[in-house]
Amino acid sequence: MTARGLFVAFEGGEGVGKSTQIERAAAWLRSVGAEVLPTREPGGTPLGEELRRLVLDPDGHVTPRAETLIYAADRAHHVDTVIRPALEAGTVVLTDRYIDSTLAYQGAGRGLTVSEARVVTAWATDGLTPDLTVLLDLDPEVGLQRAGARASLDRLEAASLGFHQAVRAGFLALAAESPGRYLVLDARLEPDAIAGLVREALAARLP
Amino acid sequence: MTARGLFVAFEGGEGVGKSTQIERAAAWLRSVGAEVLPTREPGGTPLGEELRRLVLDPDGHVTPRAETLIYAADRAHHVDTVIRPALEAGTVVLTDRYIDSTLAYQGAGRGLTVSEARVVTAWATDGLTPDLTVLLDLDPEVGLQRAGARASLDRLEAASLGFHQAVRAGFLALAAESPGRYLVLDARLEPDAIAGLVREALAARLP
Repeated sequence: MTARGLFVAFEGGEGVGKSTQIERAAAWLRSVGAEVLPTREPGGTPLGEELRRLVLDPDGHVTPRAETLIYAADRAHHVDTVIRPALEAGTVVLTDRYIDSTLAYQGAGRGLTVSEARVVTAWATDGLTPDLTVLLDLDPEVGLQRAGARASLDRLEAASLGFHQAVRAGFLALAAESPGRYLVLDARLEPDAIAGLVREALAARLP
Repeated sequence: MTARGLFVAFEGGEGVGKSTQIERAAAWLRSVGAEVLPTREPGGTPLGEELRRLVLDPDGHVTPRAETLIYAADRAHHVDTVIRPALEAGTVVLTDRYIDSTLAYQGAGRGLTVSEARVVTAWATDGLTPDLTVLLDLDPEVGLQRAGARASLDRLEAASLGFHQAVRAGFLALAAESPGRYLVLDARLEPDAIAGLVREALAARLP
């Protein structure tokens, strides 16, 4: 629970359109007078940028446990130095990925159990949970094509299609656990249509 | 418990002589025909070197939770890629710092509870505990003078004396919990005398 601001996470696989929707949501929120802070994980802080570089290096070899802990370190730093102070100042924080990405990628996809990853992640965030999580759901075959057209594949994107299908199932399972905190949207919709649905959900939750 | 090798951690504050004693122990172990792997945390792997650089950067600002998680990531990677494979091959692994350093520095010294840091650390190592921990105990005023004479102070060494006193108390409390797994030595003894006591303890535990 956040005292004053609103904490919104955008989640989903590669190429689902999270960045676009965060830009759209931020523009709308500013137009109605809200303070907005768009951020992202991994990499929402200078320390996070360095950690992100370590984990995403296509030549790097990072064990699953180490990967989970590096993401958790990034998140702990991000929460303590960026997200909590902004929420306490009344800001709407829009983050590109948060806890669910760890649980879906590391937990569902890489052989660690979700309950294991959850213990570490809960500790890292001191229990800070989003007020709303927007899950952009898409068949990974479509998403990876979109992401591939945009930039060279990093290590996560180069992993197998089966992995990305497990990740998608992981995201959907998390949303099914706490439906009141999730807005699950079909990412094949037009960006305008998605932005409209996100706007409605935000409007209903603005302080 | 390790199947075949022997896992020995050297712990203690700054300037207590861990590196010297690891060199001495390694030389003796090789002279009696043992395979030996000296290593260290943070930084026993290429990934670890990068993580070590991030945490020890004197200009860096790393929150306590993030610091604990970065050390845990380094340790998870170190255990999975270096320590466990060596132990399974029958090697004697001598590590300069391990779990107790996290618990003493992050737990006792930086405002996180030891039980919190312990959950994360146990997860990171999948429960791998040293067969023997050599704790070199020294008044931090003496240790910091020694360390300061050797090199410029890094961020840990630049912290206050009170912090280092809490760290020392943390190490001693951990040793008191499991006396059978610890060899606590007065680091004011001559290096030769310490090396002899370490040799005795190793000889009693060699496979």
